[in-house]
Amino acid sequence: MALLVQKYGGSSLADADRIKGVAGRIAAAQDDGHKIVAVVSAMGDSTDALLRLAQQVSDRPSARELDVLWSTGELVSCTLMAMALQSMGRRAISLSGAQAGIRTNMSFGNAMIADVEPARILAELDRGNIVIVAGFQGVTEAMDVTTLGRGASDTTAVALAAGLGAAVCEIYTDVTGIYTADPRLVPDARKLEEIGFEEMLELASYGAKMNPRSIELGMVYDVPIKIASSLGDEPGTLIHGGATMKPSVGEIRNRVRGIATDTNVAKITVLGVVDRPGIAASLFEPLANEGISVDIIVQNASVEGATDMTFTVKRTDLPHALEVVSTVATELGSRGVVSDADLAKISVVGTGMQDAPGYASTMFRTLADNGINIEMITTSEIRITCIVSKDRVADAATALHSRFQLEKPD
Amino acid sequence: MALLVQKYGGSSLADADRIKGVAGRIAAAQDDGHKIVAVVSAMGDSTDALLRLAQQVSDRPSARELDVLWSTGELVSCTLMAMALQSMGRRAISLSGAQAGIRTNMSFGNAMIADVEPARILAELDRGNIVIVAGFQGVTEAMDVTTLGRGASDTTAVALAAGLGAAVCEIYTDVTGIYTADPRLVPDARKLEEIGFEEMLELASYGAKMNPRSIELGMVYDVPIKIASSLGDEPGTLIHGGATMKPSVGEIRNRVRGIATDTNVAKITVLGVVDRPGIAASLFEPLANEGISVDIIVQNASVEGATDMTFTVKRTDLPHALEVVSTVATELGSRGVVSDADLAKISVVGTGMQDAPGYASTMFRTLADNGINIEMITTSEIRITCIVSKDRVADAATALHSRFQLEKPD
Repeated sequence: MALLVQKYGGSSLADADRIKGVAGRIAAAQDDGHKIVAVVSAMGDSTDALLRLAQQVSDRPSARELDVLWSTGELVSCTLMAMALQSMGRRAISLSGAQAGIRTNMSFGNAMIADVEPARILAELDRGNIVIVAGFQGVTEAMDVTTLGRGASDTTAVALAAGLGAAVCEIYTDVTGIYTADPRLVPDARKLEEIGFEEMLELASYGAKMNPRSIELGMVYDVPIKIASSLGDEPGTLIHGGATMKPSVGEIRNRVRGIATDTNVAKITVLGVVDRPGIAASLFEPLANEGISVDIIVQNASVEGATDMTFTVKRTDLPHALEVVSTVATELGSRGVVSDADLAKISVVGTGMQDAPGYASTMFRTLADNGINIEMITTSEIRITCIVSKDRVADAATALHSRFQLEKPD
Repeated sequence: MALLVQKYGGSSLADADRIKGVAGRIAAAQDDGHKIVAVVSAMGDSTDALLRLAQQVSDRPSARELDVLWSTGELVSCTLMAMALQSMGRRAISLSGAQAGIRTNMSFGNAMIADVEPARILAELDRGNIVIVAGFQGVTEAMDVTTLGRGASDTTAVALAAGLGAAVCEIYTDVTGIYTADPRLVPDARKLEEIGFEEMLELASYGAKMNPRSIELGMVYDVPIKIASSLGDEPGTLIHGGATMKPSVGEIRNRVRGIATDTNVAKITVLGVVDRPGIAASLFEPLANEGISVDIIVQNASVEGATDMTFTVKRTDLPHALEVVSTVATELGSRGVVSDADLAKISVVGTGMQDAPGYASTMFRTLADNGINIEMITTSEIRITCIVSKDRVADAATALHSRFQLEKPD
C-alpha cells in the first residue's frame, strides 16, 4: 500500500459540488489501495473577500495578522473536504498546517518551510484516516501562523511528500499537464509526458503556471511530481529527476523541451549614468526595498565614462518602479529615464541544450526571419530568453515551436 | 495600571465600520490607563454561510470538523480587530484560542474549559500589545480545535479574566444591561445597576440573554462581570458576588430582583402510563439520546396504578420530541400522547426570597387575579416558575413586575 500525496487547487474547490467531485477522486485513489494525504488550497476566490475586509479596516495591515486571515481560507476548504469524504462513508480528518507539522521561519506572508514533523499525519494514517491538510500555511516555533506565499499549496504538498517519503506527489489543477508552449499562443503545443526538474524550473520561472519553490523542493528531495487535471482522467505530466529518465533519451529526443512565455513585462532604461562602482547597487536597492522584483538586467559598454542601464520589471509594477527610479536617476546624474510597457519574454528551455551549440543562433535567426526584433537577451545553462514586443510573442512562440519541432512526440 | 478583559459580541462587529468603532472603544480604554485583553465573537452572521457550505457537502458533518470550520469566524474577526487597532497607531496582536492558552476537554461542539495557560497573553501585554483573543474556541491536549457552545465567547472572556486575575470582565453587547423584565413585554422594566451571580444565573437560565456557564465561572472565581452596550456609554449592570454587595442591602431592597420569560416552550403529556420503577428513565433517555433537552417534569399522583407524565421541551424541538415519545409511549402501554405548543415560562427570581415566605402565593394570586391559568409550577431556592399560555405572558410579566414593585429603584 503506497502513500500518495495529492494537492487540489482553488479552482477545483470553487463550490460544494466541486468539493464533492474531488472527494470522489480521493476516495477512488484510496480504493486503488493507497494511503492518501490530500493538500487543499482555499476555495476559488474566497480570499478576495477577506482581503477587502482587511483593506476596509486598515491601510497597511500587518503581515502577521494577514497571515492568520489568509490561513482561514484553507481551514474552511480542508474541513469541508473531510466532511464530504465522511459523508461518503470514509474515515477522514482535516489538519491545519500547524497540526500537519509544517514548521516555518518567521517571514510572514512568504515563509520558508524549515521542517516537516509528520508524527500526527502518520498517526492519523495508521488510524485508517484519509488526511486532508490545509495548504499554503505553516507555524513558527512560537506557534504563530505563517503563509508560504502565492501558489504555495504546491510547496506544502511536495514538502509533505518528501517528509513522508511518498512515492509521488500528484498536483491536480485546471490544466491537463505541462505543454511545450502556451496552447493559447501556439495551437500545435503538445503536452509533455515527462520533464526534468531543471527544465521545469526554468519553464515555471519563465511563464509555466507552477510554483518554482515546489519544483526546487521536489528536485532536492527527489520527489516525482505529477501535474494533471482535477476534472478528466488524462495522464498529465511527470516532473522527475534526470536519473530516472529513459536511458540515452538525451540522444534521441529533442533537446528543446518547451517554450515559456510571459507577457507581463516592462523595460526601464536609465540613460547616461556615470560608470563607477556601486551604480547598480544604488539603483536596485531602492527597488528591492519597495518589493519590486527586477528580472533581466543589461548594462551597455561604457562610452566616455557613461553607460545605460536597462532592466525589466513586471508591467504591473512599472508605475511604482518608475517613481522609485526617477528619484535615484537624478541622484546618479542620469540624462533621463525611458520605459516601454508593451514587452514580452520568450524562452526556449531544455537540459540537452547545454552540451550542444547552435540553439541560441537558431533561436535568433528564427526570430529575425519572422521580422521579430530582439530587445534584450539573457541565458542560463539550459535556457535562452529574449525580450520581444508583446504584439509579436504569439508569432515568436509559434515560429520557435515549429523550428524546434516540438509538435513531434519524444 | 489595571488589567481589563473586554468582550465584544458579533452584532457589535457586523461590518468593517463597527469593527473600527469597537477598536476606538478599546483604544479609549487603553488611554484610561488599562492593559487590555479583548475577546471577540465572529462577525455578525458570518458563521451562517459556513454552516450552509457544510450542509451542502455533508448531511451529518462531524463535530470535530465543524469546530474547525466555526473557529475560522473568530480568527477573521480577531485579526481584523488587531489590524484596525494597528491602523490607529496602537500595538496590537491577535491570538487564537489555542495561542491564548484556552485548554479544553474533547467535547467537540460544546467543550468545557479545563485550564487557562496565560503565558503568551502575559508576554504580549508586557510587550505593550493590546491582545485580541478569538472567543468561543479552545484546543485539546492533542492540539485539536474545539468550540465552547453557543454564546460561549462570554465564557472565554470570564475564564481569561479569572486566569489573568483581571479586576473586571466587561461584556459589551447589543443590550444596555440586565433588566427587571424583558422590556419588550413590560414597558416599565428597569435596568439593574447590580445583581448577584446566583440571581443572574437563574435569570440567564430562564430567559435573560447571557451564557449561564460564563456566570457560573464568574461566581466560582469571583470575577465581577459588567454587561453594557457596545454603542453608547451607559453604565450597564454589574454582576458580582454577594459578599461585595452593600451591607444589609437585603433588608431594605426588594427581594425579587427580576422576572425572566421564555416563549419557546411546548408541553407533552404521556397519559395513563403504568406506574412502576424505571418509567421516567425509559421515557427521557431516548429524548436525551436525540439531543432534546427536557426542562420541567411533573408526574401526577398515581390513580389505580397508572399515572400521567407531563414535561416541557423547546417549541422548536416539539415535532422531533413527539416522534420519539410516541414510540416509547406505546411500549409503556400509555393511553396516548397530547401536546400544547403555545406555552411560555415566567419566573420571578431573587436571593432574598429564600428566607421570606409568601412570594409563591403572591405570584399565584397575582396571576389568578389577572385571569391567567397556571399549567405547571416549578421552584428553586431563589426562583418560582410557572408555565402559562404564550398569549398571556406579557400580561403576566407586567402584572408581576407591578405587584413586586420592580419599577422602583433599589
